[in-house]
Amino acid sequence: MPPTLTVDAVVFRLQDNDLEVLLVKRAKDPFKGEFALPGSYCSAGETSTESFERTLKVKAGCDPKQLKLVEQLYTFDTVARDPRGHAISITYMGLGKDIALQKKNATEDPDFYSLNNLPKLAFDHEIIINYAHERLRSKLAYTNAVFAMLSTTFTLTELQMAYETILGHKLDKRNFRKKILSYDLLKETGEKLTAGAHRPAMLYMFKQRALEVLVRSLD
Amino acid sequence: MPPTLTVDAVVFRLQDNDLEVLLVKRAKDPFKGEFALPGSYCSAGETSTESFERTLKVKAGCDPKQLKLVEQLYTFDTVARDPRGHAISITYMGLGKDIALQKKNATEDPDFYSLNNLPKLAFDHEIIINYAHERLRSKLAYTNAVFAMLSTTFTLTELQMAYETILGHKLDKRNFRKKILSYDLLKETGEKLTAGAHRPAMLYMFKQRALEVLVRSLD
Repeated sequence: MPPTLTVDAVVFRLQDNDLEVLLVKRAKDPFKGEFALPGSYCSAGETSTESFERTLKVKAGCDPKQLKLVEQLYTFDTVARDPRGHAISITYMGLGKDIALQKKNATEDPDFYSLNNLPKLAFDHEIIINYAHERLRSKLAYTNAVFAMLSTTFTLTELQMAYETILGHKLDKRNFRKKILSYDLLKETGEKLTAGAHRPAMLYMFKQRALEVLVRSLD
Repeated sequence: MPPTLTVDAVVFRLQDNDLEVLLVKRAKDPFKGEFALPGSYCSAGETSTESFERTLKVKAGCDPKQLKLVEQLYTFDTVARDPRGHAISITYMGLGKDIALQKKNATEDPDFYSLNNLPKLAFDHEIIINYAHERLRSKLAYTNAVFAMLSTTFTLTELQMAYETILGHKLDKRNFRKKILSYDLLKETGEKLTAGAHRPAMLYMFKQRALEVLVRSLD
């Protein structure tokens, strides 16, 4: 007998300088009533991307169009990860900004929770979230992926805070600005943000709002 | 009905300055007698890594212990990729040097074929090989992955040729040496290679013969 096949969704957003993940409360056993990533069985004739999108809509009331970046994360297949028997999970990571949930239309009571204060999770979902967080951290170093979690325009201070929140540690302001501008990913908008007594700050935007990989030349 | 679940193996080796991939001739329909990646159905109770290793041994006579680096590549799930019905393939990439095949013990007539001259392939296996090649290329820029395809010790000329073969283009000798030494991945062995009329060349080795990711500091 083949293993069963499921899809699980790891959706991250930045909110008030906090990295949050979308969780649901499971409507059915096993782990009924416990927190988990939104997940479903895959059906034949449906790709795993389609299963991912259906799961977000139905279980978490989350319109996947709100995600600015989606990628396949990893396929988890430890034999003992599901008490019902060997189940394989194809996982996807989605990133967005200001993601709204249609809670009334959701079957599993969805909400966002801070990664700094996660509830106890069903299955191996804590492992999956940690894996996704690590992937996101490493992508910050060689891609423009953070664009998906920011407004279209932002100050360098806002960009640095996004990086710090995801990485989980402070960065030196001067060096961060020098490095990030040297990567040629950003452009000035010409607009400035005036806030309180501070000097107006230049607003930047990413040259591309699609994933761009920093190529490290070998010569 | 859920999709069926398979594992396919993309095993690369460098041979005579050529990048080669392990292929088999399929023993059964569909695509009987045609070239394909070694692949199998997954069984419950077996992880996909275990299915990968079993497939290599049984179908391709390849002892997976010869692979110096193995990683999950991607899970392919296009609905129409298998004429038998919706089949999902968890793919793994394995890298090695001097990989020997026990052809007598193999069920599907395995051999290595140059990526520059691939035969027509069954299913979507050409897409999978191209995806793996692209992953390998990009890993060269931010990891030490090439160690898995080289002897323990090597000259900088041999290292550059390995990079050029995988990337598919020439690199500037002086800049390559400067960059690769700046990454702090290599150490001098103290030994030199004397060949023909050339000046003896320093032999290097990787500090680690396990995957090491170059961290790009953001400050």
